Amino acid sequence: MQALIFDLDGTLVDTVYAHIFAWQRALAEAGMDIEGWCIHRRIGMSGGLFTRAVARELGRDISAPEADALQHRHGELFTQLLPDRRPLPGAMELVRFLRLSKIPFGIATSGKRPEINASLEALGLGQETVVIERGNVTHAKPEPDLFLACQQRLGIAVTDCYVVGDAVWDILAARRAGMLSIGLLSGGYGEDELSRAGAFRVYRDPADLHQSLDELGVYPER
Amino acid sequence: MQALIFDLDGTLVDTVYAHIFAWQRALAEAGMDIEGWCIHRRIGMSGGLFTRAVARELGRDISAPEADALQHRHGELFTQLLPDRRPLPGAMELVRFLRLSKIPFGIATSGKRPEINASLEALGLGQETVVIERGNVTHAKPEPDLFLACQQRLGIAVTDCYVVGDAVWDILAARRAGMLSIGLLSGGYGEDELSRAGAFRVYRDPADLHQSLDELGVYPER
Repeated sequence: MQALIFDLDGTLVDTVYAHIFAWQRALAEAGMDIEGWCIHRRIGMSGGLFTRAVARELGRDISAPEADALQHRHGELFTQLLPDRRPLPGAMELVRFLRLSKIPFGIATSGKRPEINASLEALGLGQETVVIERGNVTHAKPEPDLFLACQQRLGIAVTDCYVVGDAVWDILAARRAGMLSIGLLSGGYGEDELSRAGAFRVYRDPADLHQSLDELGVYPER
Repeated sequence: MQALIFDLDGTLVDTVYAHIFAWQRALAEAGMDIEGWCIHRRIGMSGGLFTRAVARELGRDISAPEADALQHRHGELFTQLLPDRRPLPGAMELVRFLRLSKIPFGIATSGKRPEINASLEALGLGQETVVIERGNVTHAKPEPDLFLACQQRLGIAVTDCYVVGDAVWDILAARRAGMLSIGLLSGGYGEDELSRAGAFRVYRDPADLHQSLDELGVYPER
């Protein structure tokens, strides 16, 4: 029996570009001008690593209170920019299929509440869903902790878990967790970036993945 | 003597992510939900082709008045989202260097006035700069018309022009114009997407290109 462990933003909900733009504006308001593409390529890594990367880019330090203020302002702007969450094509159908087929799955995201609540709601994911979030682990992606915590909660062997994500950080964290991974283009990375990082397969979006579950040997228990 | 023909958005100014977000919102307001990454990969192509691509994605027609209204609303939202334009790292230094060195260069953009005015101003590009815009040609990228019009205005042979752009549409239009092209990562495409499309070299941003002009055989007249 195999399990699917999903990233959330850019993998199941179409939120990456709002996150990029909210980060860019929050940083600019604080006098830190960072190019959009540099933010894009760092979305999905832990907030601590993200801040360190931004600091390196700017050639200055960012203090812990400054980082907290940025994160808070990002959350405000994100909610303003994207009051509604939109599931990516096929995401709702895929999780419904997995649930009905009793194929184990969970969510493992670097995101925090309350930002992730609206996404889980938009996907129709209720209390019964296994969700591992930033606060549940010491280190976020690209450390393997989120995926390993999800795998343990699901009770499925590491070698039977597939990670599904849109960022190279998902792919890297999956490798470090000893799991195979599947890349989705729906977060705006190129196919080759995901393949080169180690994704076993790359699909367009959740709908494309759903159509291709047979290629992964994922099917309902008989 | 060689010439450089630059795309504008994502190549010299950091505007791609604001364009994506403005398009996504303008389309959503009109009841057309399109994923961010699908818009991202079509930014920079002509408005007509963009609209056709969106229509295909949605499985419906978009009428000419509807397309005009979308374009107008996109412009409004873009200006709201990004009242100030920010040159990409090294862009101002690069164009200043080219001007002082008397290395011919021009801008060829699928954009229109008034959207592009603020970008040209932010780059310190005055009236003397050769700028070919959407309205100057019949077909925008990926047709070669913009680049060929720029090349003719500069009076430099096609084979001596390098196109510099961030999107596969720039690279494709350059090939169709018979010009070599250079990809920049600053629009958020992956390196391999640009190389596979035919970019002769791929650099991070204008600063990285500036450092690498020798690799291209571009240098001041003695």
